[in-house]
Amino acid sequence: MRVFVPFDTRDPKSRLSSVLDSSEREQFAHVMLGDVLDVLQRAGHDPTVLATAPLDCSCSVRVDERPLSKAVNDILDESTLPIGVVMADLPLLTVDSVEHLVDQSGDVVIAPGLGGGTNCLVIRTPEFRVDYHGASFLDHRRQATKAGVDISVVDSFRLAVDIDDPEDLLELLLHGDNDAAGWLSNAGFSVDESGEQPTLSLSGDRQ
Amino acid sequence: MRVFVPFDTRDPKSRLSSVLDSSEREQFAHVMLGDVLDVLQRAGHDPTVLATAPLDCSCSVRVDERPLSKAVNDILDESTLPIGVVMADLPLLTVDSVEHLVDQSGDVVIAPGLGGGTNCLVIRTPEFRVDYHGASFLDHRRQATKAGVDISVVDSFRLAVDIDDPEDLLELLLHGDNDAAGWLSNAGFSVDESGEQPTLSLSGDRQ
Repeated sequence: MRVFVPFDTRDPKSRLSSVLDSSEREQFAHVMLGDVLDVLQRAGHDPTVLATAPLDCSCSVRVDERPLSKAVNDILDESTLPIGVVMADLPLLTVDSVEHLVDQSGDVVIAPGLGGGTNCLVIRTPEFRVDYHGASFLDHRRQATKAGVDISVVDSFRLAVDIDDPEDLLELLLHGDNDAAGWLSNAGFSVDESGEQPTLSLSGDRQ
Repeated sequence: MRVFVPFDTRDPKSRLSSVLDSSEREQFAHVMLGDVLDVLQRAGHDPTVLATAPLDCSCSVRVDERPLSKAVNDILDESTLPIGVVMADLPLLTVDSVEHLVDQSGDVVIAPGLGGGTNCLVIRTPEFRVDYHGASFLDHRRQATKAGVDISVVDSFRLAVDIDDPEDLLELLLHGDNDAAGWLSNAGFSVDESGEQPTLSLSGDRQ
């Protein structure tokens, strides 16, 4: 299946700015993107990066600088369905979790993100339109109901954890074993297990 | 399968004290417990509440006021395996997610919680001991490796979301359709969808 992976090249992962500087955030975002593309390919899919600017990448790249929903809805108009849309900041993605997503029946399959976003979609009907603004999980579910489209929700922790805020990095360190987790360890992040609950620990020169 | 559901009757859900008073937290904890017991029964299992004090409950109750790990390890010593241990603060639990947990192969099956805890266990071997203190997901995995026990990790968002902090309530409102979600709505909580991202909203008299 053709899977589009949105990637915003402008100030990526800005909510991590309290723990990573601008150049590090750019590197980290690219490493996560690489992990996602690698998993999608190993799961037998054909990823295309949907980027806001040209990008050096081994996969095909489609450049569209408009807001994401517009860009994806245009793709829906011109594509043979099904297509997938999988976010670039899902470094816990595995081949199994991608298969779990794609194996679900339904005109639309959605994997919610923590906090009410939409991390992954499989779209099998032209009746569906995306809207990534705001509480997109609720919006997508309501929109599907309104359009009489059968939507199924995937229950997956690995698809739900998107990396937005520093606390998300803890999940990556706890459960990741790919390049993004390695990058983060090399950058001086680790899990502090000394307290009642594990916390994110930064090496001395980062504090 | 016999499934133990730990429930601490002493100051339950203390980390919700910024949004719920003591009596509300007690009520809410009991409603979540009821949801969990109901789902386990509908999934065909036999739940026993493992409580720190006697409790009025339609299920069987085992009282043990010692730390949780000690109480569960004693149960492991005296039980016919397998047994399950499922936390009482998992109001997104569904019959499907319980079946997904129990269907996994492995001497031990673990469902991690957000933040590195252990939300559910299925234990099929007497070689395994629980340790719920600290980063219990990592501890349990290491302990299994050390004991030569085959452990499998369940990928489930519904099993991962335990209700500890106010931000967890947002997940319950977004994805729950059981009594705990209803209780929370009736108590004046809702999802504010007006911003860039959904947030937890409290009715006027709670602010």
